[in-house]
Amino acid sequence: MSTRPVAFESLHRFTREAFRRFGLSETDATTGADVLVTTDAWGVFTHGTKALAGYLRRLKLGGLRPQGRPHIAAQGGAWATVDGDSSLGMIPSVFAMKTAVTKAKEQGVAYVGVRNSCHFGAAGYYAWLAAREGLIGLAMANDIPSVAAPGSRGPITGSNPISYAVPAGRHPPLLLDMSTATVAGGKVYTARTRGERIPDTWLLGADGKPTTDPSGYPDVGALQPAAGHKGYGISLLIETLSGILTGAGFTWQVGSWMWDEGRKPTNHGAAFLAIKTDLVMPAAEFAQRMEALVDEIHAAPRAAAVERLYVPGEMEWERHAHAIKHGIALPDDVVVNLKKAAELAGLDLNTVFA
Amino acid sequence: MSTRPVAFESLHRFTREAFRRFGLSETDATTGADVLVTTDAWGVFTHGTKALAGYLRRLKLGGLRPQGRPHIAAQGGAWATVDGDSSLGMIPSVFAMKTAVTKAKEQGVAYVGVRNSCHFGAAGYYAWLAAREGLIGLAMANDIPSVAAPGSRGPITGSNPISYAVPAGRHPPLLLDMSTATVAGGKVYTARTRGERIPDTWLLGADGKPTTDPSGYPDVGALQPAAGHKGYGISLLIETLSGILTGAGFTWQVGSWMWDEGRKPTNHGAAFLAIKTDLVMPAAEFAQRMEALVDEIHAAPRAAAVERLYVPGEMEWERHAHAIKHGIALPDDVVVNLKKAAELAGLDLNTVFA
Repeated sequence: MSTRPVAFESLHRFTREAFRRFGLSETDATTGADVLVTTDAWGVFTHGTKALAGYLRRLKLGGLRPQGRPHIAAQGGAWATVDGDSSLGMIPSVFAMKTAVTKAKEQGVAYVGVRNSCHFGAAGYYAWLAAREGLIGLAMANDIPSVAAPGSRGPITGSNPISYAVPAGRHPPLLLDMSTATVAGGKVYTARTRGERIPDTWLLGADGKPTTDPSGYPDVGALQPAAGHKGYGISLLIETLSGILTGAGFTWQVGSWMWDEGRKPTNHGAAFLAIKTDLVMPAAEFAQRMEALVDEIHAAPRAAAVERLYVPGEMEWERHAHAIKHGIALPDDVVVNLKKAAELAGLDLNTVFA
Repeated sequence: MSTRPVAFESLHRFTREAFRRFGLSETDATTGADVLVTTDAWGVFTHGTKALAGYLRRLKLGGLRPQGRPHIAAQGGAWATVDGDSSLGMIPSVFAMKTAVTKAKEQGVAYVGVRNSCHFGAAGYYAWLAAREGLIGLAMANDIPSVAAPGSRGPITGSNPISYAVPAGRHPPLLLDMSTATVAGGKVYTARTRGERIPDTWLLGADGKPTTDPSGYPDVGALQPAAGHKGYGISLLIETLSGILTGAGFTWQVGSWMWDEGRKPTNHGAAFLAIKTDLVMPAAEFAQRMEALVDEIHAAPRAAAVERLYVPGEMEWERHAHAIKHGIALPDDVVVNLKKAAELAGLDLNTVFA
């Protein structure tokens, strides 16, 4: 098994072909591949092609419907609710953000909620879709409970990610993609897989106390909420906009895309917002103001031994540029999972490394 | 000076009358008083009537315009931008959220930005305005830089608060009001005033390293962002929606309502969002789902020695109910500042404690 960098296009082709073999249309397979491989290119390996095998398994067992068609279940002037038809989570999510962008271009702002979806990968991809069109984008989703509330013994909410992207003129878009837990569950699970200890700020054990041992996760314990009641509070807002408001499952009603029996839809919810940047000034002036903000941060005084101050997404965009030029250096655990995906799809993983 | 509880109505009347004496209309004075005294009733004393004397000083010097009239500078289907006309920050904020609610009732969701505003007090009050009308509300604002970015020596963004409120059926509305710093600057300043040390997670010293000494704040050092890059990232989203997008000041362009020379407008920005709850189901069904979420959290297993699990705002609503019934027990530093306000306004503070 090689760990030399793989070309973005090779990994994209492999992922697309794997989805094709499980019954997705060329368009949907391309969408799924683009989300996962872009995520790897950002260096967010917990949410990229590492998950491909898990999605393929659900597509095979029927919990994800290969021919599912996301559609608008209800809509009004500046909003819509999309029924994901239990298709691969990336498909209704892209559909929903494109709908939000279209409506926001007319109304200034738009909210689109999604139900009957599944794990959608990295929230940042969808926020970026809006920024590529010159709009501010927000994306968020709920998930199975894995995160504690202050004082709880065991999980209360999902790690409920939230992301935003803002066009920033000559700079790449600002892009934040964060879990409302201290860390994404995928990082704890990766540490468990690698047999590593974790910082005591990540996880609570069965007794509700901090632990450095990830070996029981996710069956035992709960992630710690980021900044205590703040992360918990934002997580409940995400649960409201993604799960409660859309008619999706919420908290324990949501199925695990990874652990549950693969025949049942998970009924994840998600929410997308798009906002135009030229509401009271030309888009170019908004861009200049964003550039000035970024330039100001770059020029600000730094603490000792700190070489640079970053704006959100800056590291990811530099990795992305490097990945496009020099390929993506996949961690071993991603390669292990890609091998599983290749076996499931009857594809030769070596073609990716060729 | 008495520290026995004061009646909500007495403090409201005193605050209203103080604003009246500085030239505010009866309506505006009532709005200002309602925001500040409700905030005290929630127990958020850093953002309540403690600030009254500071606002009066700016009203006297002209940085706040007593007769300023917030108005819609531009608008479209689901958005508006309000020019605050340098009036007391609560006035354009209430006007903006009411505008957002009206537009959201038509379009499903609405965004209203504000420029030429000032410090608006507790963000939660405006989010609650939407929840009182049966909508989900979000409120946020920028402020003078006081919070570090990861790696910075000195402040980069404001403590940029964000708040949301969600109607929750038979339960009081979910209500989160948080600074994107580890703590609100007001808490550090209160510790300085009281001569207390602070936890080492609140503040960075002049060298960019954590300190427990608040005595230099706010001239020296910077607050730590909540959850590091996460709080910093959310703070920049708030800066974008409140400051950049609206044409308000951003980062160092914003004036300090407390420290700057009081003749100049501060040009704070703010942003308000309202979302209907009956988009795809009757409002009553949404309320039932929110009730189920809250009930589920209340019934969840607790860590040892934890008596209750709270949802956001629950503690504040219990304090509010107690305050309405038994009065508000004002901390000494609030009473000290109210005495200053009484002197400025030529009012007798003893009437409040009568």
